[in-house]
Amino acid sequence: MNSPRDIEMLIEMMAKLPGLGPRSARRAVLHLIKKRELLLTPLADVMQIVAATARECVTCGNIGTTDECEICRDPKRQTGEICVVEDVADLWAMERGAVFKGRYHVLGGTLSALDGVGPEDLGIPRLIARVDAEGVSEVILALNATVDGQTTAHYIADQLEDRVAVTSLAQGVPIGGELDYLDDGTISAALKARKRV
Amino acid sequence: MNSPRDIEMLIEMMAKLPGLGPRSARRAVLHLIKKRELLLTPLADVMQIVAATARECVTCGNIGTTDECEICRDPKRQTGEICVVEDVADLWAMERGAVFKGRYHVLGGTLSALDGVGPEDLGIPRLIARVDAEGVSEVILALNATVDGQTTAHYIADQLEDRVAVTSLAQGVPIGGELDYLDDGTISAALKARKRV
Ligand SMILES: [Zn+2]
Ligand SMILES: [Zn+2]
Repeated sequence: MNSPRDIEMLIEMMAKLPGLGPRSARRAVLHLIKKRELLLTPLADVMQIVAATARECVTCGNIGTTDECEICRDPKRQTGEICVVEDVADLWAMERGAVFKGRYHVLGGTLSALDGVGPEDLGIPRLIARVDAEGVSEVILALNATVDGQTTAHYIADQLEDRVAVTSLAQGVPIGGELDYLDDGTISAALKARKRV
Repeated sequence: MNSPRDIEMLIEMMAKLPGLGPRSARRAVLHLIKKRELLLTPLADVMQIVAATARECVTCGNIGTTDECEICRDPKRQTGEICVVEDVADLWAMERGAVFKGRYHVLGGTLSALDGVGPEDLGIPRLIARVDAEGVSEVILALNATVDGQTTAHYIADQLEDRVAVTSLAQGVPIGGELDYLDDGTISAALKARKRV
C-alpha cells in the first residue's frame, strides 16, 4: 500500500537478515534504489552469481565456489595441522589472523543434548577419518569459550588424544567470548600460545 | 584469500549498507548462503526486479514502479491536501500512520546554505506549481523537528501562505526527533492535532 509489492517484498526479506530490522531494511532499500546503477544492480548481480556458485567444501565444510575449497586444494596448506572451528565465520576470523597455515574442519555447531546434536551431526567421525587419512600430527581446537564449545572440545580431545596431539587456543580468548568478535591480534596471540589439552 | 572473490565482493557491498558493518555483513552473507534456496536466490531475484523497475514518481518524488506512483494515480487521494516530507522514508512513515488520505510532495532534503541546497534543489517551485494546478486547499508540512527541517518549513510557509492554508504536524513530535523513528500512533496524533503555521 505505501510502496509497490516488489519493493515491500525486498524490504521484508532484508529485514530478516541478522543485524537488520524493519527500519534499517527500509533505509537500506531506499539507499539502494537511490543509487540504483551504482549499488542495487551490481549487488543483485553478485548475489545471483553467489547464489549460483556457492557451496560447502566436501572435505572441511568451508564455503567456496568449488567442491573442494581453496584451502583444501592448496598443497602448501597440508602441514599436518587441522584447526577445528564451530562455523565458517570462525574459519574466516582465523584466516584474518593470518598465522595458521594448515587446514580446517568446520563442525557447523556444538554438541547439545538439549537440541539433540550428536557427534555425527558435527562430522566428528569424518574428522577422525581425516586425521588417519591425511597424516595429521596436530589438531587445534579453536572453539568458542562457551560451555557448549568447551564441552565439544573435551569430547573431541577424548576421541583423538590416542592418535594425535590435540591442542586448544589458549591466551587471549575471554571467558564467555565468541571467536568472531575478537580482533585479529588477539587471535594471532591465542594461536601462538596454544597449549596441549 | 579466506573466501572466493565473488563472496568477498558480496560481503563488501553488504557492509556498505546503512545499519550493517563488516562483521554483520559477513554474518548476513553466511546466513544467506546457508539458506541459498530459501533466502539468497529469492532475494537476488527480487533485487533484480526492483533494480529494473523502481523509479521516482514524476509528480511527488515517491518511489514506485511506474512514472506516476500509486498514490498520485489514485483519484480518491485527490483531497486537496498535500503533505510535504523530507524523504521517501518519511512518506512511508506517514502511510503507516494510515490517517492522511491526500497526496505527498517529497523534498529530498532540507534547505542548507552550508551544503548549497536551495529551493530549486528541493523542488519547491514545483510544489508551488502543483498547489496552483491541482486545486490544493491545504499544505501540511511534515518535516523533521530539526533546525534544518524547521528552517525549510518556515521558508515553504512564507512562499505558500498567500495561496493556501499551510499547517504543520504539531503534537507528539519530540524536539530534535526524526519522523521515521516515531511509532505509528504518535504520527496519527500529530497529524490530527495539526495547527496553522
Ligand atoms: Zn575445504
Ligand atoms: Zn507520486
